[in-house]
Amino acid sequence: MVDTQSLPLPVARTVADARAQVAAWRAQGLRVGLVPTMGALHDGHLSLVHRSLAATDRTVVSLFVNPTQFAPHEDFAVYPRDEATDAGLLAAAGAHLLYAPEAAEMYPAGEQTRVSVPELGALLEGEFRPHFFTGVATVVTKLFCQVMPDWAIFGEKDYQQLQVIKRFVTDLSIPVTVEGGPTVREADGLAMSSRNAYLTPAERAAAPALYRTLTAVAERARGGEALAELEAWAKGELAGAGFGTIDYVTLRHAETLQPLADLSAGPARLLAAAWMGKARLIDNIAV
Amino acid sequence: MVDTQSLPLPVARTVADARAQVAAWRAQGLRVGLVPTMGALHDGHLSLVHRSLAATDRTVVSLFVNPTQFAPHEDFAVYPRDEATDAGLLAAAGAHLLYAPEAAEMYPAGEQTRVSVPELGALLEGEFRPHFFTGVATVVTKLFCQVMPDWAIFGEKDYQQLQVIKRFVTDLSIPVTVEGGPTVREADGLAMSSRNAYLTPAERAAAPALYRTLTAVAERARGGEALAELEAWAKGELAGAGFGTIDYVTLRHAETLQPLADLSAGPARLLAAAWMGKARLIDNIAV
Repeated sequence: MVDTQSLPLPVARTVADARAQVAAWRAQGLRVGLVPTMGALHDGHLSLVHRSLAATDRTVVSLFVNPTQFAPHEDFAVYPRDEATDAGLLAAAGAHLLYAPEAAEMYPAGEQTRVSVPELGALLEGEFRPHFFTGVATVVTKLFCQVMPDWAIFGEKDYQQLQVIKRFVTDLSIPVTVEGGPTVREADGLAMSSRNAYLTPAERAAAPALYRTLTAVAERARGGEALAELEAWAKGELAGAGFGTIDYVTLRHAETLQPLADLSAGPARLLAAAWMGKARLIDNIAV
Repeated sequence: MVDTQSLPLPVARTVADARAQVAAWRAQGLRVGLVPTMGALHDGHLSLVHRSLAATDRTVVSLFVNPTQFAPHEDFAVYPRDEATDAGLLAAAGAHLLYAPEAAEMYPAGEQTRVSVPELGALLEGEFRPHFFTGVATVVTKLFCQVMPDWAIFGEKDYQQLQVIKRFVTDLSIPVTVEGGPTVREADGLAMSSRNAYLTPAERAAAPALYRTLTAVAERARGGEALAELEAWAKGELAGAGFGTIDYVTLRHAETLQPLADLSAGPARLLAAAWMGKARLIDNIAV
């Protein structure tokens, strides 16, 4: 356990405080990076912090569990929250500011504006979580306009989210450079995720089948096997490993996320989402 | 006719050029104002330019006829366009930069992001022009993120548009101060509008009945007459003066634009929209 007393990390709770700190840095000619998170930090988040520290002069980490990206039946109420532990991890990693706004700073009285990315946001995750990407695009637009970073990073674990964010940043001309950080995995291949905490020990032992299956599909696709048959095979593998509902296992264009007829049709990404017990796990790899 | 050769006004056609000029001004500690327009400038626009010149150190005027705020059956194709005349007027007024982006700068290939203000944007004009305010909010968000002004002004003639813009600027934390500029009127009371050019001489002679009627309704409302009866009376007046379809004449809360039961329920605005020939005219006044 990190001692947060001996490693203090400044915390901004208002837009005004965050802007004042960023403006002071910018006046010194320093470049500012932002790592948006919902807390419950793991090594995946910390790898993004390290990348920001390497790419910029000052790193702001935001922590906000965003209600508008959860549907009423989803896990907003039980999403893991432990700011003190998160702050200790960030201080130890060398972050410069924690921006943990109150809900009223993000969603003021009477607020109603939404940012949507209708095509990219309706695919894949959007089919199963219809309001998800509008919630993400709205809150990330707010964070960008509040903090005004020069640079920001998002994990490739949420690959579609990364593409949605790059799309609206381009479309709205938001002056920030957006990068993706590689997925960090447990030793057995399971992608790190705050939602892995929902797994029982038996489910946790079975969960690495998701990454193992994606890796096998990618290798066989490169070997020339037909995509439709590989996707069907993958679903059988996942069901056999103990996954419940399998939302999708699919090869897509790496930027538009439109279905790919074959690997020659453009840069490809293999993406999957499946339920293991109470946890909906997602993962993806380049092909 | 202003000679644009003797009064040159710098023109930026790309985001990069506009940002470079604004960044240079900001580095000198100058405050930057933005006056967004669709061109076809009249004294109403120029009054906004003068207000910006008084409130800030440098004034950027944008000129972009925004396709996404027109429905397919509306007047996008025939909307008046004459950049050379507009540039001459702006140079004479003392504006510092004309930002007239190409369409591809505003709507790049693959663009799809939209900014919506669902409650305010669905009322009044939104009932008759369902995509209008999403088009406005989207393009103004782009302009703000491109130019990054400290301050911006919009005419009160488009009163609901002004409220929509104030709403999304607050909701998204866009760092710009938004002000409204009073409606400028012809000698006979008709609100200046680029669409007045669509009126025949006879229609032009009849059109001031819109403002005259609003003024009469406001005075009688202050005198205690019932709102429902006054609105019905106003519609009769407008029809008698030669207006065709009358979309609405209504008293609303000045910020939320929700219906007001009576004048004691909050700050009030009287708004109207009605067709005169091929022109859909709107107007509004404080009550």
